[in-house]
Amino acid sequence: MTLREKAAQLGSVNAAKLLDDGELDREAAEELLSEGIGHLTRIGGEGSLSPTDAARITNELQEILGETRLGVPAIPHEECLSGYMGPEGTTFPQSIGMASTWEPDLMAEVTEQIRSEMEAIGTVHALSPVLDVARDLRWGRVEETFGEDPYLVAAMACAYVSGLQGDSVEEGISATLKHFVAHGVSEGGKNRASVNLGERELRETHLYPYEAAIRRSGVESVMNAYHDIDGIPCASSEWLLTDVLRGELGFEGTVVSDYYSVEFLRSEHGVAADEREAGVQALEAGIDVELPATDCYGEHLVEAVENGELAEETLDESVRRVLRMKLRKGVLEDPTVDADAAADAFGTDEATALTERAARESQVLLKNEGDLLPLDDVDTLAVVGPKADDVQEMMGDYAYPAHYPEEEVSVDATTPLEAIRVRAGVGVDVPYEEGCTTTGPDTSGFDAAADVAADADVALAFVGARSAVDFLDADEADATNPSLPTSGEGSDVTDLGLPGVQQELLVRLHGTGTPLVVVVVSGKPHSIEWVAEEVPAVLQAWLPGEEGGTAIADVLFGDYNPSGHLPVSVPRSVGQLPVHYSRRPNSATNDHVYTGSAPLYPFGHGLSYTEFDYDDLELAADRVDPAGTVAASVTVTNVGDCAGRDVVQLYVRPESPDQARPVQELKGFERVALDAGESKRVTFELPASLLAYHDRDMNLVVHEGSYELRIGRSAADVVATETVDVSESKVVPRNGRAYFAETHVEDA
Amino acid sequence: MTLREKAAQLGSVNAAKLLDDGELDREAAEELLSEGIGHLTRIGGEGSLSPTDAARITNELQEILGETRLGVPAIPHEECLSGYMGPEGTTFPQSIGMASTWEPDLMAEVTEQIRSEMEAIGTVHALSPVLDVARDLRWGRVEETFGEDPYLVAAMACAYVSGLQGDSVEEGISATLKHFVAHGVSEGGKNRASVNLGERELRETHLYPYEAAIRRSGVESVMNAYHDIDGIPCASSEWLLTDVLRGELGFEGTVVSDYYSVEFLRSEHGVAADEREAGVQALEAGIDVELPATDCYGEHLVEAVENGELAEETLDESVRRVLRMKLRKGVLEDPTVDADAAADAFGTDEATALTERAARESQVLLKNEGDLLPLDDVDTLAVVGPKADDVQEMMGDYAYPAHYPEEEVSVDATTPLEAIRVRAGVGVDVPYEEGCTTTGPDTSGFDAAADVAADADVALAFVGARSAVDFLDADEADATNPSLPTSGEGSDVTDLGLPGVQQELLVRLHGTGTPLVVVVVSGKPHSIEWVAEEVPAVLQAWLPGEEGGTAIADVLFGDYNPSGHLPVSVPRSVGQLPVHYSRRPNSATNDHVYTGSAPLYPFGHGLSYTEFDYDDLELAADRVDPAGTVAASVTVTNVGDCAGRDVVQLYVRPESPDQARPVQELKGFERVALDAGESKRVTFELPASLLAYHDRDMNLVVHEGSYELRIGRSAADVVATETVDVSESKVVPRNGRAYFAETHVEDA
Repeated sequence: MTLREKAAQLGSVNAAKLLDDGELDREAAEELLSEGIGHLTRIGGEGSLSPTDAARITNELQEILGETRLGVPAIPHEECLSGYMGPEGTTFPQSIGMASTWEPDLMAEVTEQIRSEMEAIGTVHALSPVLDVARDLRWGRVEETFGEDPYLVAAMACAYVSGLQGDSVEEGISATLKHFVAHGVSEGGKNRASVNLGERELRETHLYPYEAAIRRSGVESVMNAYHDIDGIPCASSEWLLTDVLRGELGFEGTVVSDYYSVEFLRSEHGVAADEREAGVQALEAGIDVELPATDCYGEHLVEAVENGELAEETLDESVRRVLRMKLRKGVLEDPTVDADAAADAFGTDEATALTERAARESQVLLKNEGDLLPLDDVDTLAVVGPKADDVQEMMGDYAYPAHYPEEEVSVDATTPLEAIRVRAGVGVDVPYEEGCTTTGPDTSGFDAAADVAADADVALAFVGARSAVDFLDADEADATNPSLPTSGEGSDVTDLGLPGVQQELLVRLHGTGTPLVVVVVSGKPHSIEWVAEEVPAVLQAWLPGEEGGTAIADVLFGDYNPSGHLPVSVPRSVGQLPVHYSRRPNSATNDHVYTGSAPLYPFGHGLSYTEFDYDDLELAADRVDPAGTVAASVTVTNVGDCAGRDVVQLYVRPESPDQARPVQELKGFERVALDAGESKRVTFELPASLLAYHDRDMNLVVHEGSYELRIGRSAADVVATETVDVSESKVVPRNGRAYFAETHVEDA
Repeated sequence: MTLREKAAQLGSVNAAKLLDDGELDREAAEELLSEGIGHLTRIGGEGSLSPTDAARITNELQEILGETRLGVPAIPHEECLSGYMGPEGTTFPQSIGMASTWEPDLMAEVTEQIRSEMEAIGTVHALSPVLDVARDLRWGRVEETFGEDPYLVAAMACAYVSGLQGDSVEEGISATLKHFVAHGVSEGGKNRASVNLGERELRETHLYPYEAAIRRSGVESVMNAYHDIDGIPCASSEWLLTDVLRGELGFEGTVVSDYYSVEFLRSEHGVAADEREAGVQALEAGIDVELPATDCYGEHLVEAVENGELAEETLDESVRRVLRMKLRKGVLEDPTVDADAAADAFGTDEATALTERAARESQVLLKNEGDLLPLDDVDTLAVVGPKADDVQEMMGDYAYPAHYPEEEVSVDATTPLEAIRVRAGVGVDVPYEEGCTTTGPDTSGFDAAADVAADADVALAFVGARSAVDFLDADEADATNPSLPTSGEGSDVTDLGLPGVQQELLVRLHGTGTPLVVVVVSGKPHSIEWVAEEVPAVLQAWLPGEEGGTAIADVLFGDYNPSGHLPVSVPRSVGQLPVHYSRRPNSATNDHVYTGSAPLYPFGHGLSYTEFDYDDLELAADRVDPAGTVAASVTVTNVGDCAGRDVVQLYVRPESPDQARPVQELKGFERVALDAGESKRVTFELPASLLAYHDRDMNLVVHEGSYELRIGRSAADVVATETVDVSESKVVPRNGRAYFAETHVEDA
């Protein structure tokens, strides 16, 4: 390979440069791809091509590459966080909603479906999932995460990866863990802002999901983060991208850059004088492939090698990784797909059923005073609010319809209003008033909304935040533009209340005296202290995707008994942050004046239409070897009148740590389905190594001593505890450690 | 010395145990002090004794100690943050106000006065200053700090220490740097909560003031902080208290515990099973003396040595440090004072004049639209607000009247209302209405307040937060108790607006159409976006102390031309935090939706009744050796009509750093007094070593390259820049490095 051909393997080319009005610009492509290319950036998604066209044009591009001197095809990559982000991709619930299911198997089913759609168009590589642990809810990307807890994030991430990658490397879509690392605790909750944290927190909270996904799921790719940690940009941190990621966590795939993050070394962080310097820094740190386009790699790396600024063997190492991936994925054999069959993979009944199921299971019932839900015996049902009748309002950022609001997106979806009207059926009057927009200041619709509410038996208010990717410039951000999104990438907020005048609308509706159900359709939880106090029923619906409307109706009418549980603690106000349940004792117990330290709703919280009892927590032994496993069993009984599912949560707490430890940490969970009156015995096989934490020299050690095992229905509702003693201290080997407790469920 | 006698030197005894209704309980004292004692805890302050009694009883206690087997007297310590915290101590402006003067020499004059009062009562040791760098304004103790910038904090701290300790070790009061370290960035801004930060941030932001004060001012004592850093409680961190503090920063004095922080290792952090374990951990980490009482040291340490849990030589080392301090301070020779003369040191005209001067110079004029101030030609002046006529409302936490609100404190002080009435004189009507309390919900006083405002030529509204020490329990914090303080230790808040209904009161007053001046009397800046936009004149008065009323009147009527500048950036809302000026580029430029990234008022901002021009910035050379010094000179001219003072601020920024650096950092400042029309030439002698930062291996290095030197009137108002090149990279030696730029001012 020539130096130029090698450098080309480390770059990508954007769909926009290859397409002209939806058709391949063959001349441009032949020129741009003459030396080969590493990746092809989002041909279908960015190109807004139908599945058939996406497959056809991807095939053509691979054929053009096949005609180059070396004939090495490219890795076409796409985004697919909650579904393939291109025309006709099925949109599933946004990640925060998937995490609320506490059902990794369902996550894997979803990504299997996503895989089948992406494979059909010739995609090889996907830029998801997001493994950031969300600790600052101001961040617009909280919706893209699996929440605040590293164990839950790790469990959902491993499932995501295994469904997407499938059983064989050749067939599956390579997953990308992002954003390496600790993007969820940036200053001010601002995307790309600095991250401040200690190494122990970095390792235990933020690296843990990566380590689990790398060691357990053989993930093929990792993406660096935009920010700096303690001054060192992740994109230029050899310590992070090479020493830790490859050396300690055992990663063997390719590291790809977050879009434009190599260039940001120059233009944002100011650590590189020009593109070449940025490229050299990134490559030397460990970024193999620059995305989405070749801005700082390519010619710049060629020059750098020729100038002696970059060792050719550094470049060779990354080229080897890219080629090895192409070899393993079968790209080198035949990268093309059957374009005529591509459309068959989309819009299937199975996909529709699956996204509806996922949406149902993601719903979290926060409050249900007087069993207002499920709805029963209503003649008039008022539906109000900006989130009730708009498909895009149901989608998260990185879902195609939300990401490209300017496109003419036709989504075969049902809004909550439509689904409620269908379900309510003939004889029930379902008037609708929007009342206000999600973010605007206009209250002129309040009167009409209050009128329909006043005349109804029950009023359903659909409120929340609108998600979209939006990289604001300073002027826009400061402007009183009433249509800005307040969630999604680049949309970081200073207030966690409901945006715009929605809270005022709710006060007005509540004032009518009609029983009010608030459905929050939002990628982040809101600080809705007034709602939590005054409104009888509150459902957190997240961003439930294209069948979200039906799923919400299923829950409201009791066709599905809600079983979702919060993957984040909900603060009483933005000023109370952070409120995650696993704070250390001094943070968890010292109070703010007038606010205290407890969140509005705790991590793990979620109500059902039935009730569950917990009994007979027992440990198989009260002493465990540091390399051993302790079995903890508990009986869960559905003591209510209808079938339901609860999430049994296992938390642990060391009783005599030698450092300030979180007040408790999740180390196991199991969702259990129970008919009315049924009991099941749930057993957690907890490896003692999951009790380990890093000592003062950063060794990961299982410490001798007593540990409390706690069974909770939420982090704030611990129903049973037992104590186990670890017999001696022992360093945990990095390779081959356990990341999860195994669980068994038996009839009781 | 017996083991018991040695252990006794590492403890203290609280005034409450030695006094009975204001008189010495001789029997108790003889028993408690039979083996000797290290410290005596706040006899005068906690005992609420008059200076004469404090001196007399301290003498008696020292005499009792003189009669023990070894006859070693104690170190009596007191609090004195903004003045001796005992009856009749002069209260100066709270630290945040002193920092606003940008006048270290004035700080030193103030602590010289504090020293003279404390020496008179036999005090040897003081538990101040606070060197925490305030980065989270929710923290109740922001008022105790010198603000957000390590350079300004270091400069004020060195001056504080040198004034308090004086020129000779024997005579002065030993200062204590606290709270070691990084207390100003705790989670949620909560006192004692966890601190998360990287080592570079720890060193450059938080350790810097300590290093400067230790190396430059020979400080005698350091106090540990309550919190943990990345899980390791400061009270049990040998790395911090020994390796860094003594090994790297060169500290040679005694480390004392923050009150109860040794015990908190057990009861809060949970890292010690009992008092003995807590005591051993703290002593081994490097805490020499437990304060305020002997809870975990004393008998517990004796037992630990006898059990073999603690090496006697570890204990000996701390005992040697305590005895060495007693020797150096002259305590071993004669620890008594002339009690009959004690009262003479208090209530002097000099102290009164000094506290008024300090209060005047601490005032920061934030806004003055249409030159509403100084007041001129008014017949009726309405005074409104809860901070206008109450002495305690003028005091910060750790000032005696605020710390002991239940005591019958008679302070010879003038409130703003009284001072305004005196200054306005005969012929000007000055009606007063409180309007509301600082935190309560009662708006029934609004009508009367609006009435007096409506009838006046100008309305002056005094608003802010009330400060007091207040360790809430959870119930209290959650309660809707309308009288809670919202600043001071333990009073951490979730909202930075004006407490209670004060903002509503201002809206009401503004609605009268009478020109409104808002005076914020508060230990922290508030997020007063509405006020900043709507109200023509805003004065930040901080907590100006006992002559604050007169000082505020001086400024309002133009008898003193305000010259204070903000030592902290004021955020637009709590959700915008952090907003300090020295964020890295990615944090400083990425925006929050609807809020942007710029603060409401920038660090260094402060208006005057005159105007200043800046010209002719020149560097003596455009290239400097890493061990050399670059001289930067600028001419400042008073182009207005009256005399005034401006603070010339020197910021630096590396043009080609190898890591993400703060957008700029303060490296010099000088307050310049100028008559109308006068010019002066200000020269900064900037050691190149002040351009150093820590490389990836944590070496402190002056990096080769270009640096922009920027002259600013605030961090957001840079008026001139020049560039200097550092000729080569060089590691900065820890011992003997420079901490400050020298400045010269000449007539121009």
